Amino acid sequence: MKKRYLLAPGPTPVPPEVLLKMAEPIIHHRTPEFSQIFAEAKEWLKDVFQTREDVLILASSGTGAMEGAVSNLFNEGDKVIVVNGGKFGERWGKISEAFGLDVKWLNVEWGKAVEVEAVKELLDREGDVKGVLVQASETSTTVAHPVKELAELTRDRDCILVVDGITGVGVFPIPMDEWGIDVLVAGSQKAFMLPPGLAFIALSKKAWAFAETSRLPRFYFDLKKERKSLEKHTTAYTPAVSLIIGLREVLRMMRETGLERIYERNARLARATREAMKALGLRLLAPESPSNAATGVWLPDGIDGGAFTKALRDEFGVTVAGGQDQLKGKIFRISHMGYIDTFDIIVAISAVEMGLKKFGYPVSLGAGVARAQEILLEGYGVRV
Amino acid sequence: MKKRYLLAPGPTPVPPEVLLKMAEPIIHHRTPEFSQIFAEAKEWLKDVFQTREDVLILASSGTGAMEGAVSNLFNEGDKVIVVNGGKFGERWGKISEAFGLDVKWLNVEWGKAVEVEAVKELLDREGDVKGVLVQASETSTTVAHPVKELAELTRDRDCILVVDGITGVGVFPIPMDEWGIDVLVAGSQKAFMLPPGLAFIALSKKAWAFAETSRLPRFYFDLKKERKSLEKHTTAYTPAVSLIIGLREVLRMMRETGLERIYERNARLARATREAMKALGLRLLAPESPSNAATGVWLPDGIDGGAFTKALRDEFGVTVAGGQDQLKGKIFRISHMGYIDTFDIIVAISAVEMGLKKFGYPVSLGAGVARAQEILLEGYGVRV
Repeated sequence: MKKRYLLAPGPTPVPPEVLLKMAEPIIHHRTPEFSQIFAEAKEWLKDVFQTREDVLILASSGTGAMEGAVSNLFNEGDKVIVVNGGKFGERWGKISEAFGLDVKWLNVEWGKAVEVEAVKELLDREGDVKGVLVQASETSTTVAHPVKELAELTRDRDCILVVDGITGVGVFPIPMDEWGIDVLVAGSQKAFMLPPGLAFIALSKKAWAFAETSRLPRFYFDLKKERKSLEKHTTAYTPAVSLIIGLREVLRMMRETGLERIYERNARLARATREAMKALGLRLLAPESPSNAATGVWLPDGIDGGAFTKALRDEFGVTVAGGQDQLKGKIFRISHMGYIDTFDIIVAISAVEMGLKKFGYPVSLGAGVARAQEILLEGYGVRV
Repeated sequence: MKKRYLLAPGPTPVPPEVLLKMAEPIIHHRTPEFSQIFAEAKEWLKDVFQTREDVLILASSGTGAMEGAVSNLFNEGDKVIVVNGGKFGERWGKISEAFGLDVKWLNVEWGKAVEVEAVKELLDREGDVKGVLVQASETSTTVAHPVKELAELTRDRDCILVVDGITGVGVFPIPMDEWGIDVLVAGSQKAFMLPPGLAFIALSKKAWAFAETSRLPRFYFDLKKERKSLEKHTTAYTPAVSLIIGLREVLRMMRETGLERIYERNARLARATREAMKALGLRLLAPESPSNAATGVWLPDGIDGGAFTKALRDEFGVTVAGGQDQLKGKIFRISHMGYIDTFDIIVAISAVEMGLKKFGYPVSLGAGVARAQEILLEGYGVRV
């Protein structure tokens, strides 16, 4: 009879209305009914991407769209700069290497954002760089990279800015057209409040021109083919029907709430979490350039992160994420994306407090909750 | 996109597994499949009632079973003592009067339990009292009445003890056979974690003997007819099929957890809530004999209960109950029954704190949560 609370940075909770919608009898994908759903979803997706370009819908996890970005836009031997400040930055590099690109790794300390100046220097030094690949939000380190400033660097070069926005799009503003982002990738299981299984990718006109000259091997992730299918309100291969029905539903909900309010809410939940953790005497993983998608927190010395997150999950029913790779066992991460609201954050902070107490850390119970409440009350127009 | 938290004393939250079970295609009630489900449900119900007697299952709200208790066991002009210390005590009296019984009202201040001595005096004074009607847990005042002691008074008289256990059965121990309770009533939407629509009633052998001589008019709530149907694994009239399928499921879950653990959990959640409210400087409605089903709390002067509970519900998404009748606008009530766990209580207390702050009460944010956490941690074997 244990209740479960899901506060990991993906998959995120799915609203019950959406689960019910996806549980309706499945319909065929070559029908006017599905075409209508698809047509709405693809239009509404543009608003969330803040672009006038097509947003392609792929039946894959986000990594599929990342692969598509590489395999459709570059050629063997192309020089690309990969901002490598976490597990997902590393993934850009691995995909690029798998397709024979010449990767210039720009390593960044985990927990820090890339310095714009460092990217500029590398661009200038290397000269013929075709792409800069980066995360808007590096989920593994809970860092937000300066995507807007990076776009200014690539704008006037023969180089595209390829942004993994998997935990960024729909979380905080990443206006693709306004900033001049060339490729923007997202996934269903984060701010879109859906189960995993859909990836989204949009390309600027500059990126589509790159796609014309790309000759890398690809079949499933063929973006030009997807763009043609999109005109006919479908996908190149069988669409994930129930997920797309869910997508239409979440986009309807997001439109109803409004992007600005969603960004504000996520920012408030993130700030409340960060301030609560500081009130408990804990150190943030990314104090200088935190992402509003999730908050990473260093565990006090002597507490094993694996045991800590396991206790929260198995004893309290509260799932937060641990650390990955070099951060394994050292941190935990609390998500603020999607269908997460005030009292999820209260639950998460309370569970962290109780977990710390359980592990013998001299925590002042309620201190984090109190600090968070002050900030969360602002969302209801109450100033403390 | 607001999340909702249901902490009113009924209906209580329904576990998702049970909702899914009840959403399966409906089956016919005159089938071996349904008979098997019904047979398990009726057996397992006995364990929760802590009785060897039949527990009848009615398609009605709890009030239907209360009416059945009166209309099947007494005769016109029969003298009954009604313990009237809240809205549901009053209901016993109204039903009894509707059927022409001679009601001896034993009025009790709302928020207090009945004094056993007062019942004894009235029994002795009146002489030929046929029944004592009382609540195990008076939901409107969050009081637990001394049912065990009352059963000792009626045991050796020609008088039956009729107990409304609607917010008692499955919440705290009311061992029917052991204590000598003659009639015990429950409903689906409280500790049984189901939607409203089922009532349960069990009769002692003494009560069944009363039923033999009762001549009051009845048809739908005919307990002898129901008992006969029960032998054939069904009900006298069309059973509420999906609710009974849900009932089998919740009883399976309750068996898996164990009654003792359920009682302990409810007691802990109730104690945590009471102590949290005191830590916030609030007064309990029933400090002396609180029910573990729900906790009633006086609002500070100047805060209107209607506005307070409305703000919690509409702004925070947290539904607690207000006061009824003479307590309307003066109190709020937080439930601990059924599918309610640690973090529901944290959410409720946190919402109360934030609500008080919103209404300008000088509350120390986090103070109630902190006190509750200390007690809730005991449930995980952590002593603070």
